[in-house]
Amino acid sequence: MDIKEFYDYYREIAQYQNVAALVEWDMRTKMPPKAAADRSMVAGKLGRTAFEMMTSPRMGAFVEFFNRPSIASQLNETDHRNVALVTKQYRKVSAIPADRFEAFIVACSRGEHVWQEAKGKSDFGMFLPCLEEIIGFEKEFVEYEGYEQNRYDALLDDYEPSMTTAELQSIIDGLKQELVPFIRQLQEHGTRPDTSFLAGTFPVSEQAQLSRDVLTAMTYDFGAGRIDETEHPFTTSLGVGDVRVTTHYYEHDLMSALFSTMHEGGHGLYEQGISEEYHWMPLHRAASMGVHESQSRTWENLVGRSEAFWRFYYPRLQGRFAQFRDVPVEDFYKAINVVEPSLVRIEADEVTYNLHIMLRFEIEEALIGGRVQAADLPRFWNAKMKEYLGVEPPDDAHGVLQDVHWAGGMFGYFPSYMLGNLYAAQFFAAAREAIPNLDEELAAGHLSVLREWQRSNIHACGALYDPKDLLVKVTGKPLDYHPFMDQVRAKYGRIYGIVERERD
Amino acid sequence: MDIKEFYDYYREIAQYQNVAALVEWDMRTKMPPKAAADRSMVAGKLGRTAFEMMTSPRMGAFVEFFNRPSIASQLNETDHRNVALVTKQYRKVSAIPADRFEAFIVACSRGEHVWQEAKGKSDFGMFLPCLEEIIGFEKEFVEYEGYEQNRYDALLDDYEPSMTTAELQSIIDGLKQELVPFIRQLQEHGTRPDTSFLAGTFPVSEQAQLSRDVLTAMTYDFGAGRIDETEHPFTTSLGVGDVRVTTHYYEHDLMSALFSTMHEGGHGLYEQGISEEYHWMPLHRAASMGVHESQSRTWENLVGRSEAFWRFYYPRLQGRFAQFRDVPVEDFYKAINVVEPSLVRIEADEVTYNLHIMLRFEIEEALIGGRVQAADLPRFWNAKMKEYLGVEPPDDAHGVLQDVHWAGGMFGYFPSYMLGNLYAAQFFAAAREAIPNLDEELAAGHLSVLREWQRSNIHACGALYDPKDLLVKVTGKPLDYHPFMDQVRAKYGRIYGIVERERD
Repeated sequence: MDIKEFYDYYREIAQYQNVAALVEWDMRTKMPPKAAADRSMVAGKLGRTAFEMMTSPRMGAFVEFFNRPSIASQLNETDHRNVALVTKQYRKVSAIPADRFEAFIVACSRGEHVWQEAKGKSDFGMFLPCLEEIIGFEKEFVEYEGYEQNRYDALLDDYEPSMTTAELQSIIDGLKQELVPFIRQLQEHGTRPDTSFLAGTFPVSEQAQLSRDVLTAMTYDFGAGRIDETEHPFTTSLGVGDVRVTTHYYEHDLMSALFSTMHEGGHGLYEQGISEEYHWMPLHRAASMGVHESQSRTWENLVGRSEAFWRFYYPRLQGRFAQFRDVPVEDFYKAINVVEPSLVRIEADEVTYNLHIMLRFEIEEALIGGRVQAADLPRFWNAKMKEYLGVEPPDDAHGVLQDVHWAGGMFGYFPSYMLGNLYAAQFFAAAREAIPNLDEELAAGHLSVLREWQRSNIHACGALYDPKDLLVKVTGKPLDYHPFMDQVRAKYGRIYGIVERERD
Repeated sequence: MDIKEFYDYYREIAQYQNVAALVEWDMRTKMPPKAAADRSMVAGKLGRTAFEMMTSPRMGAFVEFFNRPSIASQLNETDHRNVALVTKQYRKVSAIPADRFEAFIVACSRGEHVWQEAKGKSDFGMFLPCLEEIIGFEKEFVEYEGYEQNRYDALLDDYEPSMTTAELQSIIDGLKQELVPFIRQLQEHGTRPDTSFLAGTFPVSEQAQLSRDVLTAMTYDFGAGRIDETEHPFTTSLGVGDVRVTTHYYEHDLMSALFSTMHEGGHGLYEQGISEEYHWMPLHRAASMGVHESQSRTWENLVGRSEAFWRFYYPRLQGRFAQFRDVPVEDFYKAINVVEPSLVRIEADEVTYNLHIMLRFEIEEALIGGRVQAADLPRFWNAKMKEYLGVEPPDDAHGVLQDVHWAGGMFGYFPSYMLGNLYAAQFFAAAREAIPNLDEELAAGHLSVLREWQRSNIHACGALYDPKDLLVKVTGKPLDYHPFMDQVRAKYGRIYGIVERERD
């Protein structure tokens, strides 16, 4: 058996996945509505084909052969990692009986549908039976897949390889202790920036040009990508040379589109930057969802909401939208950095965002661990919102029903968002050390300086390293929430006019 | 064996074909350039999968079983026709050795590439070896497939089922005898309409709105379709509920986009109108390429270049483009109906168009019959252009190299264009009989009256009938070129101010 055969076989799977991704992209961006039912069926068929190839006896034979010590020891680093990634996935996926997996997919498909309606009516009871069924599947699958200490480990690992619940819990405990009082301090003693001049009417066609312009400035390659409009922005890779992003445009909210575009552009740069050496290989993907999110957060928050970036970009914005001509850049910078505890995760600012995630993580972990029942969720949710953010949802639509993830069976995904924020801060601190004049470069519009650092340190590697190994390799340290807190304290302390006491 | 199994199996093929069509649509409309190589490979893979399923032993078993007299006699009309369509295709396709078919696909792929370059350089010699290879394949395949009288019958049948070379030749002989002198008469004795007011600058965004508006007026269903821009307009069906058209916009040529849109819209109405009863069946397609073209030609020429339509639509055009405000509708109508022998088929008017096709048919038939060699084509082409149209190509780019069809291995396709014109006139004459006030309806903007007639008589049937049976069913007569000549004589005689002598 030659490693080339393995790659040839995997390429076919990847091709099906690319086509499935195209079908999905088209469904979300271009497809006329009357095609939905048939196209879903076709998408399911493509997914099943890829699943079947991934769990086939032939794949089993590859896994068995290339994991033999005598064979494995002769593989080079790339081949070794490709085999390891596929082996892990093969073992996970083939541990689940095919009919149970299919039943799960059906339950999630129905779940998303019911959730949509239940959210519209703000009726948690309507969604509850679906949610219970899906949680049942999650618990069942966790047993098939196995775990070392905590059931939730198996779910976490789907999105953040090798991350454990215990590690995550310890990070959260530390972060929470610093973040909650800091937010209170901002609220109680800080001066909220004026945001009145952000209101206005911004023609969609102008916004679309702005989005293209900012992506170009970020060195996003339009020869290997494109931008379209969708209600919920997303990024998708259809393979090497085809990484597509979307954004949304609201006529009365200019910054929403711009930050969405920079966020998705950050994801896009990651996918566009994976080494072509890994073309059609298992390695040709991001290290994890958390690392992916770190790149989007970097561009959205650490660049897009930075003073340095706006020193460069503000004149361009002013040229396009006359209402900013008399607003000083410093005021603008403060206005786009308002901190406000809010009910809805996707509207949360850079500082409060992580609290939304902690709450979800704690709920998921307790659900999977059986210490909380689905029926208790609204109460549990509302209590934690009050505790962490000091706000109380007026109804379940703005509370426990706000996200689609559980309806879609994506337990274990939420922590990626928080990890993304923490990784971003830690990577960015390393980038600052490597590029001492980083702020000047950004202020001069040389965004490629940052992008090149990201590419060579993070993007190009694809999934060659587990995220924790990548983090140590790039930053010299394991995951640590302090870079995030340091960055947030420095930035928002200044914006809100708070002099921080010396920390011990 | 149950007919349901046959349909289930065919549905899978149709699903692959739909996905392949989506990939193709995306390649032509949205795909970033750097994805081209990989996506071609994936498109090839999907096509091969559908091909393999179409020629599989399982398909062979279906064909054998449902063609047994004892079984076939129990099928209803729909099932019977579905089996017949698949049987015909199965026998054709599986007669060709798979490796020869693949070699042909490769030759065509290279052929299109070389043709592109050769056309750019106007260098027929560069393209000649490819063309010879492709013609070699065509001759070889014709022998596998078999034919009754003329080798060319087998090729013609791919696009126009059951049409023979002899029939086509006889139609052409008659039509040519009337058409060539009529064009000469227009040129020599007619008064060419003034077209000066068509010149101008027409913003693309305005043209795009116009195209959407005219499609809506034609009752094209945007809930089951969309319009995009491409250099070469086309229509594609991605299945029930998803029929997409494209058009092109030239800033200095308003009518080009509008007629392209109406042309593709006519194709689109056909696909959107096929009965949903035939969902996922072999029947769910047009009767033939010629019948397809008849629907596009009807909307482009018989509606889009008619006086009745412009009585309805001209005020809308004037509302959008101020330059027409002082131009009477009669002058406009004449201007969009100029007859001018020209070098290039795709720029040809309604009257001279068929001559471009006759020439191509005669060349193809002679090539496949071995009476003309590929090397002689430029001479042969130029001589016929002179004879039929009175023009001489200055170079091969504007002559024998102008079309992609031969490079793509599409021998037998060209006659569809001419048949489309003839069918269109014959169908339209029948529609006029069925709807005596058709002109008034069109002039009142009730385009749905025509569309409903087309739908119930032509579109809904899908491929239930062979084109010649459909023609007799709808018009009461076999194919006849006189409705075309009558329509052209009446219309252009009036526009060019020619009083025709009474024909005997």
